[in-house]
Amino acid sequence: MIQANDPSLKTWLEVPEGSDFPIQNLPFGVFRTQSNPAPRLCTAIGDYVIDLSVLNFLSVFDELDFPPEVFLSSSINNLMALGRPKALQLRNRLADLFHEGNTEIRDSAWHYLHPVEKVELLLPVQIGDYTDFYSSIEHATNVGSMFRDPANALLPNWRHLPVGYHGRASSIVVSGTPIRRPKGQTRPKDEEPPVFGPSRQLDFELETAFVIGKETALGQSVSTSEAEDHIFGMLLFNDWSARDIQKWEYVPLGPFLSKNFGSTVSPWVVTLDALEPFRVKGPEQEPSPLPYLQFQGKKNYDIRLEVAIRTAAGAEKTVCRSNFQYMYWNMCQQLAHHTVNGCNLRVGDLCASGTISGPTPDSYGSMLELAWKGTRPIDMPDGSIRTFIQDGDTVIVKGFAEKDGLRIGFGEAKGEVLPAF
Amino acid sequence: MIQANDPSLKTWLEVPEGSDFPIQNLPFGVFRTQSNPAPRLCTAIGDYVIDLSVLNFLSVFDELDFPPEVFLSSSINNLMALGRPKALQLRNRLADLFHEGNTEIRDSAWHYLHPVEKVELLLPVQIGDYTDFYSSIEHATNVGSMFRDPANALLPNWRHLPVGYHGRASSIVVSGTPIRRPKGQTRPKDEEPPVFGPSRQLDFELETAFVIGKETALGQSVSTSEAEDHIFGMLLFNDWSARDIQKWEYVPLGPFLSKNFGSTVSPWVVTLDALEPFRVKGPEQEPSPLPYLQFQGKKNYDIRLEVAIRTAAGAEKTVCRSNFQYMYWNMCQQLAHHTVNGCNLRVGDLCASGTISGPTPDSYGSMLELAWKGTRPIDMPDGSIRTFIQDGDTVIVKGFAEKDGLRIGFGEAKGEVLPAF
Repeated sequence: MIQANDPSLKTWLEVPEGSDFPIQNLPFGVFRTQSNPAPRLCTAIGDYVIDLSVLNFLSVFDELDFPPEVFLSSSINNLMALGRPKALQLRNRLADLFHEGNTEIRDSAWHYLHPVEKVELLLPVQIGDYTDFYSSIEHATNVGSMFRDPANALLPNWRHLPVGYHGRASSIVVSGTPIRRPKGQTRPKDEEPPVFGPSRQLDFELETAFVIGKETALGQSVSTSEAEDHIFGMLLFNDWSARDIQKWEYVPLGPFLSKNFGSTVSPWVVTLDALEPFRVKGPEQEPSPLPYLQFQGKKNYDIRLEVAIRTAAGAEKTVCRSNFQYMYWNMCQQLAHHTVNGCNLRVGDLCASGTISGPTPDSYGSMLELAWKGTRPIDMPDGSIRTFIQDGDTVIVKGFAEKDGLRIGFGEAKGEVLPAF
Repeated sequence: MIQANDPSLKTWLEVPEGSDFPIQNLPFGVFRTQSNPAPRLCTAIGDYVIDLSVLNFLSVFDELDFPPEVFLSSSINNLMALGRPKALQLRNRLADLFHEGNTEIRDSAWHYLHPVEKVELLLPVQIGDYTDFYSSIEHATNVGSMFRDPANALLPNWRHLPVGYHGRASSIVVSGTPIRRPKGQTRPKDEEPPVFGPSRQLDFELETAFVIGKETALGQSVSTSEAEDHIFGMLLFNDWSARDIQKWEYVPLGPFLSKNFGSTVSPWVVTLDALEPFRVKGPEQEPSPLPYLQFQGKKNYDIRLEVAIRTAAGAEKTVCRSNFQYMYWNMCQQLAHHTVNGCNLRVGDLCASGTISGPTPDSYGSMLELAWKGTRPIDMPDGSIRTFIQDGDTVIVKGFAEKDGLRIGFGEAKGEVLPAF
């Protein structure tokens, strides 16, 4: 039987060199077309989007016995709710259909195959609750050094628990959606009253997010060893942040308007199954966490991440190269912590990593850190400089895992900043 | 034409003295029965629950032209999405049907009328995002005095903006749902490592919440004068809090596991229209807020609120009597602030007030304040004392507005605390 993860598998579809979407990836998304505006599920191979609702109609999934509404849906939630094993069966069947030895549906490709530039990719998940963690020790240390005390950059709780907070789900948008510069209160001078106007310190945050595919009941906890059953897959995430608004508002209850004006996700949910070959050990944790946060095995993933800024005139520069494996707290620990009090999970809940900064200055995951609070401006190819993001700039987050010639990518999460109203 | 708000209106249904639900209230809820487990919309008069889906089936709403699925639904979201004027038409028609001069549907009452004790009231709203504010100056001052500096109890931003943060929607449950005592990390002694176990400082927070009935697009702001168009109605809210978990986790990103194990709402959404007679002026705001937070007219409401604790053995004591009118920041200011950055609203979003404490010690809206950090224990009728909530205790939040003999009430939001697993 064909396994989607088999690295030797080749497809009869054309896959450009360096594509994020070989036949081993088979992520899930939602799309529509001009001729058929009904949202429906899809996967990707190379530069093609494959309509899963049409494939289902062609009866090629009959043995898997899917409820038909799973594919004719505006989100992948119903698919996720069937469980990771079912989604793996589907990916294996897709790998079977599209591997080079199979001609079963090759002649009917015009029914289900779309060049990606001809479709509109939609937000793939109907997001219930959105949680953002703060799990990169480099990021937390940088922020603590800048705003508090370099000698005591990490707050006392940081090494004992994966700090997290709730964010806004309504304003999470799919890659390509423009982001309007937020207006709000700031207090530029401590001795003067606050002022109102467009944020002057608009930033990105390089993050990933994982999607919950299996619910829990209120009162139930998920252990670190059970956590992966509940994590369906991952996306790229840009947690846009207005630093000047954040600085004034965030005490004592955390960030609010500085974050909830918009967050950008990539359109493809890459399954944990597809990322299996890229497991790595995470950083040593010192002190050893409490028992409910301890875990067995490799729970981090080697996923290369980068951020580029493209000016309105098209001058583009990659300003950050980081890696998901730097995460101090892994996803299983985050989920165990999130549920240890009985907080219930729903299918479609999204948990973001927090800014993923690496150890070197070019791996910092936000402008705040890259330009170190405005003191080290970044040179752009057109001669301009950046300390924060300007109107007309497009921020592009990319990510992929690569090993032994196999590349499993996420595509991109990009958004252009429009001037404040 | 009959107006639901007419204080002289009487109904042919029996309404007990002091009922929260005279014919002038007509709140909206969702219920099911043992013989018909399909969730459907309802209203209340006296101790009766009135099935709106059956009334619609009896064609008494035909002139209002409702889509039939509005009443056969597991939430009032579709009804709210039709707009406040439409809901007011419905309430006026209900007032017409049930006022004492109308016999139109009196003989068919057995079709749609249920004693409240025979039905199960469900969570009335499908909640999108949940936001909690912190808008009582007495509460913020009390907390600041206890944990920071009595001389500078309010943080610098407090009088300039309605501080708020995002909370967890998945764990908001309807009145009557038991709450499991959360487990989590705490650090009882600063010089020792954190420990894990059931919270020893479980608290309630007396709050109200308002429900969004009209959406906005991302990037759009709602002014204080437009805000009431977006606020459909209000409920009672208990923001259960684990103080020991909160103290250790909340820096720097705000409360998380100390709150998201459960919040309790009352089952009835009382419309802003029904609360119209109870408008009052709020506290003076000094300094005057920025222009986007200024408003015209009376934006507070005189709603009496109280909290009772009932022990497992049935000893009950009202421990707090407060009033919604104490709120420093009103709902219109909260909503204008929430959207000033372009954060989009969806129908069903819930915004809670934050703990509503009054000026006197018996009006404080949490055990933290009532027992002043454990230093002033509360005597219970059975001779026991409380500094926080014990296993087996039921916390009951009640609220009603009353003026010139008209009482518009909310019912109650109650929950029993179960021991930690």
